[in-house]
Amino acid sequence: METVRLLGGKPHRVLGGHPWIYKTELEQQYPYPPGELVRVFDHKNRFIGIGYYNPNSQIAVRIMSFVDEDINYQWFKNKIEKAKQYRSLVVSDTDAYRLIYGEADQIPGLIVDCFGDYLVLQSLTYGIERLKPLIVEALMEVVKPKGIYERSDVPVREKEGLPLVTGLLAGEVPELVIIKENGFRFSVNIKEGHKTGYFLDQRENRLALKPFVVGKSVLDCFCHTGAFSIYAAGFGAREVTGVDISSEAIARAQENAALNGYSNKIYFFEANCFDYLRELEKEKAKFDVVILDPPAFTKSKAALEGAIRGYKEINLRALKLLNDGGFLITSSCSYHLTEDLFWDVLYDAAYDAKKRVRIIEARRQAKDHPMLLSSPETYYLKYFILQVIS
Amino acid sequence: METVRLLGGKPHRVLGGHPWIYKTELEQQYPYPPGELVRVFDHKNRFIGIGYYNPNSQIAVRIMSFVDEDINYQWFKNKIEKAKQYRSLVVSDTDAYRLIYGEADQIPGLIVDCFGDYLVLQSLTYGIERLKPLIVEALMEVVKPKGIYERSDVPVREKEGLPLVTGLLAGEVPELVIIKENGFRFSVNIKEGHKTGYFLDQRENRLALKPFVVGKSVLDCFCHTGAFSIYAAGFGAREVTGVDISSEAIARAQENAALNGYSNKIYFFEANCFDYLRELEKEKAKFDVVILDPPAFTKSKAALEGAIRGYKEINLRALKLLNDGGFLITSSCSYHLTEDLFWDVLYDAAYDAKKRVRIIEARRQAKDHPMLLSSPETYYLKYFILQVIS
Repeated sequence: METVRLLGGKPHRVLGGHPWIYKTELEQQYPYPPGELVRVFDHKNRFIGIGYYNPNSQIAVRIMSFVDEDINYQWFKNKIEKAKQYRSLVVSDTDAYRLIYGEADQIPGLIVDCFGDYLVLQSLTYGIERLKPLIVEALMEVVKPKGIYERSDVPVREKEGLPLVTGLLAGEVPELVIIKENGFRFSVNIKEGHKTGYFLDQRENRLALKPFVVGKSVLDCFCHTGAFSIYAAGFGAREVTGVDISSEAIARAQENAALNGYSNKIYFFEANCFDYLRELEKEKAKFDVVILDPPAFTKSKAALEGAIRGYKEINLRALKLLNDGGFLITSSCSYHLTEDLFWDVLYDAAYDAKKRVRIIEARRQAKDHPMLLSSPETYYLKYFILQVIS
Repeated sequence: METVRLLGGKPHRVLGGHPWIYKTELEQQYPYPPGELVRVFDHKNRFIGIGYYNPNSQIAVRIMSFVDEDINYQWFKNKIEKAKQYRSLVVSDTDAYRLIYGEADQIPGLIVDCFGDYLVLQSLTYGIERLKPLIVEALMEVVKPKGIYERSDVPVREKEGLPLVTGLLAGEVPELVIIKENGFRFSVNIKEGHKTGYFLDQRENRLALKPFVVGKSVLDCFCHTGAFSIYAAGFGAREVTGVDISSEAIARAQENAALNGYSNKIYFFEANCFDYLRELEKEKAKFDVVILDPPAFTKSKAALEGAIRGYKEINLRALKLLNDGGFLITSSCSYHLTEDLFWDVLYDAAYDAKKRVRIIEARRQAKDHPMLLSSPETYYLKYFILQVIS
């Protein structure tokens, strides 16, 4: 196996268990092909770990193991077994969950989501790309799904020099899969839905709605395929309005409302949420509960300032729409907007809206998306339940 | 009513809804007696709110209302009603909860905990001290407890120039109250137990243990009256060891174990947890789960550095005691140790223990201890569930 060496005299995060080594942390550029497995040593030639190398990426090495071992079929079977075991502890009342969450499951660059009998795989790096056949075989053996579908159509692959691809990897996968989550059913378009088809990371946060929606009027902005709306209706909301800019998402949301028998309680429609919130404010509309679950407004630190303006605007408008004692359920999945920054944004929004606000709960991504203590990068989803107090 | 005025040209947090005004934020020192209700105006004579004044405290004013209204018996009845309503939403499966959480319930300086038919009241400020008779009357009327006991024996009162007092305020209160929480029963010594007798703020966090203790060996450090240990036993732990430095706490813990029928599963004993952890490390003892719920190691920013050393030491030792795949359930209730700092402490501990660690969940105080968006001071309890991964 080829080797790479860390520069001396630097506080490498890899020494604390972080799986990433930046290009600038290595002694030199190495002539190895992208995705090649390498042994990593420090400048004093002490073994650090085994990872895969990519000369074209800023993240030159991602560590697969801190032990000197073979990364082979058995290794993947082992890791997948462990990931499965972990989910059996932390996931309940659903047949849809994240089975492999990359770095936090010690398989950097690999995402695998389970939807009923089917798996959806995302390969984010060259290293995983090269190991994919092994991974698919191991997943079939350990999980025994009816099929595995690839959704490697994520822009981050371009940083690795990889094309965006989708397609069947094993078995068969239907157009739509019906999943069952906390007693609700959802139709998921594995092949063409956003990301891997459904937002699993908000599962526990959807459940957290329960005490706050009974008998209430609910506005669900950026509702995507309707999960928060349907939970709200199921938990006893009086009426729910769900809004999203994507007509496909709204069509799927309507289908999901019907699937759960709430078509008469939820009104889904297509609109730009920024415009719609502004319109509602002009009409002086009022709601008991407003849910905001927008897509990430930024993927980079450079765009953070604009993103903050966006987050502030929607939260400010939402607060103005709330009745006294009403609840704002608000999320950000932008990694660069830290929880502290998000708290500041919400504070500024409340300040401008002239509302006094209480934080009832601050939550994160569901437990099937664990974080690494060594890698703040694995913590991205922030979720607050707020109450307007008079 | 007397008035006080804010200095001009300062970014007063009170304008964003923070209920505190520091001495240094006022135009002058006022000759009003401690606890006097005052109207607050800004330097341009715009009304800000009504609060109580204390010339002897760094926090000169605490705002009771941002509206120009009478702070009377009816006002307190209203606030208590609202607090009760809120708890009916967020508290379930328990007859013990925090009914009034001071600033976050818009009654700064007042804590009221409910234990079954009884209330425990803490008055933290001169303002509350003067209004106490009104508050006791309103509590009796709205909540109808069998008795109210005062536990104003907290050092923070000295900053207000108040003596430490305890005693019966209304009705009758027995020596011990048996509360029922999530199916478990606990004997609480309202009159002499630590703080108000029982740690309500960890209620939801105790429940969060559930998936991680089935069939496991559990070490519960700083176990106080045994709540985490008893939950662990009830959730199917194989064996539990509970340790605390207080012999009274251990006696109560043993009583609680018996009350729940787990005396044969839990071994409670008195020891200094720092020493005991060191001893266990020497013996190379191993556990599947270690719980750390220490008292606040610091109450001031000045003492933070020492506190950080303390937190690091116990977490480092706990990590070393864990089997591969084991869980560390670790808390800090020091306000000055922010979540980010606590994360850093845990990272340093894992680094030194040479353990790779995953964060499964990051939680806070229970929802009956809500936070104010405007006051980071209302957020104090940090709780992490970590897993050692190989």
